[in-house]
Amino acid sequence: MVKKESVCVIGSGNWGSAVGKIIGENVLKYPDVFEEEVRQWVFEENYRGEKLTDVINRERENPKYLPGIKFPPNIRAVPNLVEATKSASVLVFVLPHQFVRGVCEEMKGHIAPNARAISLIKGLEILPEKVTLFSEEISRKLGINVASLSGANIADEVAKERFCETTIGCQNKEDGELFHKLFNTDYFKVNVIRDYVGVELCGALKNVVAVGAGISDGLGYGSNTKAAIIRLGLMEMRKFGQTFFGTVEDSTFFESCGVADLITTCSGGRNRKVAEAFVRTGKPIDVLEKELLNGQKLQGTLTAQEVYEFLSPRKMTHEFPLFTTVYRIIYEGAPVESIVRDITL
Amino acid sequence: MVKKESVCVIGSGNWGSAVGKIIGENVLKYPDVFEEEVRQWVFEENYRGEKLTDVINRERENPKYLPGIKFPPNIRAVPNLVEATKSASVLVFVLPHQFVRGVCEEMKGHIAPNARAISLIKGLEILPEKVTLFSEEISRKLGINVASLSGANIADEVAKERFCETTIGCQNKEDGELFHKLFNTDYFKVNVIRDYVGVELCGALKNVVAVGAGISDGLGYGSNTKAAIIRLGLMEMRKFGQTFFGTVEDSTFFESCGVADLITTCSGGRNRKVAEAFVRTGKPIDVLEKELLNGQKLQGTLTAQEVYEFLSPRKMTHEFPLFTTVYRIIYEGAPVESIVRDITL
Repeated sequence: MVKKESVCVIGSGNWGSAVGKIIGENVLKYPDVFEEEVRQWVFEENYRGEKLTDVINRERENPKYLPGIKFPPNIRAVPNLVEATKSASVLVFVLPHQFVRGVCEEMKGHIAPNARAISLIKGLEILPEKVTLFSEEISRKLGINVASLSGANIADEVAKERFCETTIGCQNKEDGELFHKLFNTDYFKVNVIRDYVGVELCGALKNVVAVGAGISDGLGYGSNTKAAIIRLGLMEMRKFGQTFFGTVEDSTFFESCGVADLITTCSGGRNRKVAEAFVRTGKPIDVLEKELLNGQKLQGTLTAQEVYEFLSPRKMTHEFPLFTTVYRIIYEGAPVESIVRDITL
Repeated sequence: MVKKESVCVIGSGNWGSAVGKIIGENVLKYPDVFEEEVRQWVFEENYRGEKLTDVINRERENPKYLPGIKFPPNIRAVPNLVEATKSASVLVFVLPHQFVRGVCEEMKGHIAPNARAISLIKGLEILPEKVTLFSEEISRKLGINVASLSGANIADEVAKERFCETTIGCQNKEDGELFHKLFNTDYFKVNVIRDYVGVELCGALKNVVAVGAGISDGLGYGSNTKAAIIRLGLMEMRKFGQTFFGTVEDSTFFESCGVADLITTCSGGRNRKVAEAFVRTGKPIDVLEKELLNGQKLQGTLTAQEVYEFLSPRKMTHEFPLFTTVYRIIYEGAPVESIVRDITL
């Protein structure tokens, strides 16, 4: 008899909760494959005088991060990270990127020998000396295989079971099939591809393009111009992947993680919105972050800066004119109109 | 001494006028390559008691189809088709597709031996027995090489010199360079590729996808769902090209004619708008065409029908679930919700 897979979701924010619901429902569809109980590691907080984990386990709902959405009964919120993860054969990382290192440190030496993971973490670590994928970071820290998932997936829409698609990048075929079982539903369609690098790159770089699209909106340019910026952005995402990770495949950009997520991010989304306000009000980004995002950092402008600082010592800024122009407009006072003047080679 | 190229624009509607302005300006940049005068064939009409050609030649403007935009002085409106085209070495077809056959018939036997053409005509002729590109139709009728041009190009925005891109599909390298000179400007960026078939296919099939996107909007579905529909539509456009024209290349869908035009068409545009009204009001398409389009035929629904009638005898409707679902919703009373239920394989 084959041992069943035991699943742990690491993280319980908005996206972690939406995904936890799907995973909880899906393991019940395959009782021969998965153990019934799914543990969810929840960073313990006080919620109206109670422990958040107690509230989740009693109400079958995360009232703080995904109010109004019921979890299936087989999800168990666990406040202790090692207890939640130690016996799991499938680890689902879905937490803000700044917590990844600490969480891995704590888990190290306590995970099951047959464990593998999937990373739903958005963003890349881009330092002047190198670009690191979070999946590879987790893989290195824990010594396990790590796949990635990204797509045009706004958490609240997914939680309400609105139709969308997502992309899983997984090099191992068997693991890919397992992750498909774990995530795919009628309303959340999963495509599994091998190119996990492309999946993660798209999730990070799209935000820079969205800043460009927002600048165009702020200038009142029409839909032709915005579509051109989005397309040129897609081309630079592709070129960045091909240049610094030779393995990235063209077909990845046709997946949900590529063109679909880019369209969503450039039509709604906070990066587009704040960039539009940047043009209309003339206020610097850090002021707008305070006014519009309660002081949270905007991902797209931060990534634009990291990308610039990575490209600059390599003398390659001119090969990524859109990324570079976004950086110069936001941080160096370049005229906002350069968003169309300087973005073609 | 090499004989200079003589250019004639065939057509003078909204798009023809916007393009005529660009061509008129561009020939002046290359006095060694092009003759100064550009002739524009104008279907003669009465405009406020005068001949439209007289008004255009006097006012340097087409007040009927592109009011407020001045033409350069080297454009000459000509009401006689044979006179306009007979000495031209470059023919630019930019007229409604229903006039193509008649115009070619009239031109036949009267064109210069060194003439070649470029087609800016939107749409394909899709009959149950075969799909025909307008470039190939012109090529066959006149016995000349014909390239094609398509992109995210709303005529009024182009005429106002708002930045955008376009794609030219041209098999002959020298002709491609010539067309680049003729069309490229700082604000209208031309990419020349070889795959003229893909360029034309995209221009026609995008409208079916836009109907699907409009149905999603009418149902109030969010941006995840719409992005998924657009992506699945792009995949079916690609599959249609690969299946029925083996030569269509993946990279074409990354060009302005592909993803950029699809984004524009699915965010604004009449196909999206009328489909949204179809869902919200429950009125049939022909009623909405009367109410919203002054009785003009909607391109996307018509193309969906033609595609269905082409696929059906080949027993291939199930391989194009989005195209087929759009047809069934519009013409066969299928539930509008099937736009998400029935579009994945």
